[in-house]
Amino acid sequence: MAVGLGPLPTLHPVPGFELGIASAGIKRPGRRDVVVMRCAEGSHVAGVTTTNAFCAAPVIVTRERMQGAVRYLLTNTGNANAGTGEPGLVAAHRTTARLAELAGVAEAQVLPFSTGVIGEPLPVEKIEAALPAALADLSPDNWAAAASGIMTTDTLPKGASRQFQHDGVTVTVTGISKGAGMIRPNMATMLGYIATDAKVAPNVLQDLVRDAANKSFNRITIDGDTSTNDCCMLIATGQAALPEIERAEGALFGALKAAVLEVFMELAQAIVRDGEGATKFVTVEVNGGAAAQECLDVGYAVAHSPLIKTALFASDPNWGRILAAVGRAGVADLDVSKIDVFLGDVCIASRGGRFSGYTEEQGAAVMAEAEIRIRIELGRGQFSETIWTTDLSHEYVKINAEYRT
Amino acid sequence: MAVGLGPLPTLHPVPGFELGIASAGIKRPGRRDVVVMRCAEGSHVAGVTTTNAFCAAPVIVTRERMQGAVRYLLTNTGNANAGTGEPGLVAAHRTTARLAELAGVAEAQVLPFSTGVIGEPLPVEKIEAALPAALADLSPDNWAAAASGIMTTDTLPKGASRQFQHDGVTVTVTGISKGAGMIRPNMATMLGYIATDAKVAPNVLQDLVRDAANKSFNRITIDGDTSTNDCCMLIATGQAALPEIERAEGALFGALKAAVLEVFMELAQAIVRDGEGATKFVTVEVNGGAAAQECLDVGYAVAHSPLIKTALFASDPNWGRILAAVGRAGVADLDVSKIDVFLGDVCIASRGGRFSGYTEEQGAAVMAEAEIRIRIELGRGQFSETIWTTDLSHEYVKINAEYRT
Repeated sequence: MAVGLGPLPTLHPVPGFELGIASAGIKRPGRRDVVVMRCAEGSHVAGVTTTNAFCAAPVIVTRERMQGAVRYLLTNTGNANAGTGEPGLVAAHRTTARLAELAGVAEAQVLPFSTGVIGEPLPVEKIEAALPAALADLSPDNWAAAASGIMTTDTLPKGASRQFQHDGVTVTVTGISKGAGMIRPNMATMLGYIATDAKVAPNVLQDLVRDAANKSFNRITIDGDTSTNDCCMLIATGQAALPEIERAEGALFGALKAAVLEVFMELAQAIVRDGEGATKFVTVEVNGGAAAQECLDVGYAVAHSPLIKTALFASDPNWGRILAAVGRAGVADLDVSKIDVFLGDVCIASRGGRFSGYTEEQGAAVMAEAEIRIRIELGRGQFSETIWTTDLSHEYVKINAEYRT
Repeated sequence: MAVGLGPLPTLHPVPGFELGIASAGIKRPGRRDVVVMRCAEGSHVAGVTTTNAFCAAPVIVTRERMQGAVRYLLTNTGNANAGTGEPGLVAAHRTTARLAELAGVAEAQVLPFSTGVIGEPLPVEKIEAALPAALADLSPDNWAAAASGIMTTDTLPKGASRQFQHDGVTVTVTGISKGAGMIRPNMATMLGYIATDAKVAPNVLQDLVRDAANKSFNRITIDGDTSTNDCCMLIATGQAALPEIERAEGALFGALKAAVLEVFMELAQAIVRDGEGATKFVTVEVNGGAAAQECLDVGYAVAHSPLIKTALFASDPNWGRILAAVGRAGVADLDVSKIDVFLGDVCIASRGGRFSGYTEEQGAAVMAEAEIRIRIELGRGQFSETIWTTDLSHEYVKINAEYRT
């Protein structure tokens, strides 16, 4: 029961970027579970990957190779190839070697991605067998099919697209994503693939993906569990008839950065909207911090609190739980007499206690909505951070308690 | 449905310490919701209190006064006097002033404690009206009644008691506790009161309570939410015919320290066993850390993971979720190839992957028990830490979603 997430929007093709989908039957026969993406020669690829020390074999391989002249990205669902040790690395190498052989490129030009159950051996032969069909399917118009192909337990495919004009040339940014590992436990992984036809120098591209991911994918949380397989890749094919962006400055860079951030945000928020058992889409906005980190500390304390999340599920404006979470966030020398807390536009707490003008009816009206904003004003400085999360429902416990049974 | 928690054990009286219970009818008429404790003249009191910046009014007052010549501790349930701002402080002062007047001591010799709903004004008159009856009820034999008197939504009262002999003299340590704020959200508060008739110098007593609380009350977690009202008090009446313990050394100090720690441990674990919706009592033991903090980081990452907690509820030996939590705990330079994970005595994961000799049947057998030990060997050093927690059940969501409705 995704919150405010409809059918896929129009996903504009990106010149120089093609996608092909095929069925390897990893979890069940007929499921289209292998996605191959091809980037035109001269493309640059940048990415951010999981910070989990137990990262999966394909993540290790992708990290090693993504600085090079990448031509293909190979994704399978149904098996995360995580917690598989040395044999997992061998398996990742085998599938990419086979794709490289079929496509006539070097093995190091293929990046592997896997998502699905942790700890099972990757079915290499099944994936290899599906590669010819995936290559034959390659087309710039396959974004929607690929968005479905990378899903695991997501209830809806996720995609976003933007275009802008620069010197009479249309530049496109299109991407797809799938459920975060933190909300898709054993079916580990948040995956995001975003491509643009702008021509971007590698160092600028890497800064762009890191910055956009920090403001989007790294600001969503369901339950605080970071997967072993998370990857977010940004591909610049350079096919647009525009000069290369060599520095993080100028009008073209600014327009691209804005479009990339919008696509990242939409994809990241879509993951939260489709969170396990989610009945609410919750924005936690923390303003007035003396540093960005303390805003994040407060935001995550609120976003991870099971007491607040169950109150959100119950549409209960339980402001005491919010104050208590702010108070335990570990902010040094926090002066509670300067803190205001808002639910939507309603001030619920001020100066360390219930706001004098607040009524339960006001709070209840906000909590009855499917989309809720909790705003905390710390009154200590100029920093702000925003985090997106969900409520904690009966359905979440049901899904995660019964996942393997 | 408390896990492994039976009727109260024998709670030996502590010479020089009396308890009296009365009804103020704060939440409902007839409920015995006010507890007065009296310490003999010359007693020393030490305590640790919540680290939540939004601490309740009585916590502020208790912190100010506990260094002095404390004679009375006044506890009410049904109202936390938290999030109540300046009027809350006035209310705390009023109730303690009234008790001081009735008892013929100075107001500063009375410590206030409150637990219950956050954000409602403390019903001062009701509490004041109950004080004469509570004073009339004072007796060294009232530990069990007091254990019930401080309960809020706890399903069972919690107490523990130890005695030891030193130079032919019997020394007693007896205590009671009530549900942690983190598991009793709006009915905020973990409260613990432990008394001994040993004579202990104030600085030694303060170190003793801090050390014991760190190893017990500060190592339990249900959902990571720290209450605004947590207090744990250790009272030494000095009535035992033994010399004062002036330093943290010697046989008497050693015996007392051991007895105090045992009582603290039993009281703290009782809180977890009675955790909201708990169906499992879970010990998370982290060994082989390069520092205590990294053991705690790993332990809490596991203990707070909703994915692991729901798997525990389902009795599902989902080792992938445990590895993923260890991996995201933020330990610098974690070498996953050195990590072993055990469920009970069963090795489930070794060197970053599933242990070769492990079978699901072995794991399932351990998970079917009501008391489960997760042991993580980091292989980096000599530090160890242990944390106690519960599973995450349908009942937890139900209790916390419906608490105020």
